Amino acid sequence: MKPSIPKGTRDFSPQEMVKRNYIFDIIRKVYQLHGYQPIETPAMENSETLMGKYGEEGDRLIFKILNSGAYLDGLPQDKTDSNLQLTTYDLRLLTKHISEKALRYDLTVPFARYVVQHRNDITFPFKRYQIQPVWRADRPQKGRYREFYQCDADVIGSDSLLNEVELIQIIDEVFTKLGVPVIIKLNNRKILQGIAEYIGAPDRMIDIATAIDKLDKIGIDGVKKELIDKGFSNEQTEKLNVFVFLGKNKTPNFHNSKYPELDMLHHSDYLASEICTKGVRELKSILDRIDYNSCPNTKIQFDPALARGLNYYTGSIIEVKADPSKSIFTGSICGGGRYDDLTGIFGLPDVSGVGISFGADRIYDVIEELKLFPENLSASTKVLLINFGEEEAQHCLKVLRDLHTSGISAELYPDAKKLNKQFEYADKRNIPYVVLIGQSEIEKGIVKIRNMHSKEEKELLPAQLIEYFKSI
Amino acid sequence: MKPSIPKGTRDFSPQEMVKRNYIFDIIRKVYQLHGYQPIETPAMENSETLMGKYGEEGDRLIFKILNSGAYLDGLPQDKTDSNLQLTTYDLRLLTKHISEKALRYDLTVPFARYVVQHRNDITFPFKRYQIQPVWRADRPQKGRYREFYQCDADVIGSDSLLNEVELIQIIDEVFTKLGVPVIIKLNNRKILQGIAEYIGAPDRMIDIATAIDKLDKIGIDGVKKELIDKGFSNEQTEKLNVFVFLGKNKTPNFHNSKYPELDMLHHSDYLASEICTKGVRELKSILDRIDYNSCPNTKIQFDPALARGLNYYTGSIIEVKADPSKSIFTGSICGGGRYDDLTGIFGLPDVSGVGISFGADRIYDVIEELKLFPENLSASTKVLLINFGEEEAQHCLKVLRDLHTSGISAELYPDAKKLNKQFEYADKRNIPYVVLIGQSEIEKGIVKIRNMHSKEEKELLPAQLIEYFKSI
Repeated sequence: MKPSIPKGTRDFSPQEMVKRNYIFDIIRKVYQLHGYQPIETPAMENSETLMGKYGEEGDRLIFKILNSGAYLDGLPQDKTDSNLQLTTYDLRLLTKHISEKALRYDLTVPFARYVVQHRNDITFPFKRYQIQPVWRADRPQKGRYREFYQCDADVIGSDSLLNEVELIQIIDEVFTKLGVPVIIKLNNRKILQGIAEYIGAPDRMIDIATAIDKLDKIGIDGVKKELIDKGFSNEQTEKLNVFVFLGKNKTPNFHNSKYPELDMLHHSDYLASEICTKGVRELKSILDRIDYNSCPNTKIQFDPALARGLNYYTGSIIEVKADPSKSIFTGSICGGGRYDDLTGIFGLPDVSGVGISFGADRIYDVIEELKLFPENLSASTKVLLINFGEEEAQHCLKVLRDLHTSGISAELYPDAKKLNKQFEYADKRNIPYVVLIGQSEIEKGIVKIRNMHSKEEKELLPAQLIEYFKSI
Repeated sequence: MKPSIPKGTRDFSPQEMVKRNYIFDIIRKVYQLHGYQPIETPAMENSETLMGKYGEEGDRLIFKILNSGAYLDGLPQDKTDSNLQLTTYDLRLLTKHISEKALRYDLTVPFARYVVQHRNDITFPFKRYQIQPVWRADRPQKGRYREFYQCDADVIGSDSLLNEVELIQIIDEVFTKLGVPVIIKLNNRKILQGIAEYIGAPDRMIDIATAIDKLDKIGIDGVKKELIDKGFSNEQTEKLNVFVFLGKNKTPNFHNSKYPELDMLHHSDYLASEICTKGVRELKSILDRIDYNSCPNTKIQFDPALARGLNYYTGSIIEVKADPSKSIFTGSICGGGRYDDLTGIFGLPDVSGVGISFGADRIYDVIEELKLFPENLSASTKVLLINFGEEEAQHCLKVLRDLHTSGISAELYPDAKKLNKQFEYADKRNIPYVVLIGQSEIEKGIVKIRNMHSKEEKELLPAQLIEYFKSI
């Protein structure tokens, strides 16, 4: 039997762990700097907490946990009368009966559940961050996994647009620290709604937005065709031509407080409807507050074709991509938005929230592609003490303890193997320094240090050892 | 619908997170100091990787994941012919068919699977640590959860007893850093085997060990009765009387290199059998290497009644408990042992390993009981900037960015609420300092700082702000 792991899941080696923790630590540090507090929720939630929150597709992609014990007992009688065939059994009903728990699908719904459940212990506005894995039964493919980490920050209990401004600053700070040049795309669901109204199909905003979202891929004609196939008229789709203009002019960024496209759209009758005006005003007041000079590596764009999270976002929509002029990576590496009534589903209505989520795995891929991981990242030990045998090893244990007490990571090779074997171990583990304390060193009262990189060796007094390793 | 989480699982609030991370960070730091490298494995493993590795009970307690899609399709024909009733369906067989993945039950088996799967990329001896949650469908009760973290360190590929010595040092260092006084109990499976042979029932070591393990609870007579019920003779059980002596004399610790009980046992015919002699020699060579003076808060005991992990441990057995003279907490808070053939089950035989596992949740309870958490542990922000309205807020955003650039955690209250509301927020969040920049401050070109604890207020020049917060 050749051991393996479920498809879409991964083991992480020490080398990968160090790189992943480098990313997590930066995100965590920036979150904390901005006053976000950590929480964690269980991997498994009650099914009713998750089911129906992510649309039909989501329900299918949620991993369900089989009840323990005799999970078939007490099946509804009418379903268990004789000449019933298992394969003809109503699957939805059976699943409901044999599985009452499911694995976390994202961090947003569990967070909403957390807020409602602990509402009395929480000080609002509540700024929390959460870095945990989530699970989705998606078809695995490059860059898409069945287990992956999300790094979320949300503010709940405040509808101030300053929260959006802060989240955009957080995004900029994280990617600046990581050295990744990015484009932050902004939109507002109300603007999408305005477009739908302008086209004369206010109740079909999602159809329209979903089509427009593909503008970059399929072009304006593709968008029109898709909508006509969905029953829109030529007259309606013609009104979308303005997006060609926008498509062309998306690249210039708001590196000042003037937003030509936005003003153009706004002052045309195009986005003049009441709801849309509100969306434009929200967007502008966010853009007005951003200190563009302080984020030189980050482009900030208004993209009226940006449509994501339309099932729950009600205001701002945020999406971050690696700068295409620097990276071939096209996927979204961070996203977020505002939801006016997330906790309503759990019985706490009218609490506005806004949040973002970093996709650590995709960010990892981009950093690898751009070779931006610091070279000194290492999971390794600094010092290996060579094992020359019983007596010498006993002698080394004291040295080892002194090194540890001084905070220097060190290990004693556990077996008295041939010297070259032990050197080989140090090399493969990228341990930079080896300390040799054999009989002759013990008699001379010295210790020998070998630099595994330069192969140089030098002799020191035991008392000098700590200082030496602290100094390098 | 009142939101809730599955029984046996927990949410962790910011306050709890900070305390938990305090424990994890200490364990992680000590592991790294000793040259252990981090890895992570997926939450879900293929069922065949886990099933049958933890005994029958374990198999029942493993959380199984329902296959996605039409999981009933392709059920063995003979089982799906008509007039079959679901409730009469062979449960084991059905489960095997509808569930091919399961949640990690511990970190040891996934680690063994990892080692075999990645054997060609691993440098042996391989010292790894792993801090991840595990899941067990146990009946929840105080201190026992269905989702809990394990913090494991294992060395694989070396049978040197120096590894045991290092792990005992790690245990001492972790609990010393945490301030928790502990007793480390040591035994060796070979000694238990020797007892079984001495009693004349070499093939019933596990029955005997399991009974002796209860000595503290049920006394020597209880132990004898249990064994007699299991078919042992009076003559055999009489031979266990020596444990009464040991029970009485367990408290004196090895704070020197003399081990009276061990020697007594050894030089009596009691533990003189070949296997037992080997066990005693292993134990002594571990005890001989420990630097007792350097671990004053840790008692180290030989406990021949200690029996745990008998399904896989083949040599050393380690168990750690809070010192009963200081804590009422009786459960084991750390444990481990040596297994000579862990990876054999996955096709890589004759690789010896030894490891330990810290029970973070129980350690948390002990630290709470003994009030040992540092008082300055806080998930909070250092500075809150008061929001006096549009214009002032805009002014504060720059100050905020300067604070963040200097690494000072700070936040701007998002809404221009009444001052007392914002003070109340700072109080509840335990934010020690509040900065007030209102119209008058802006005009005067100053900033006002309020110490939320002493209620003192002082005025500074904006330029002095950073230095001030860095200095305190």
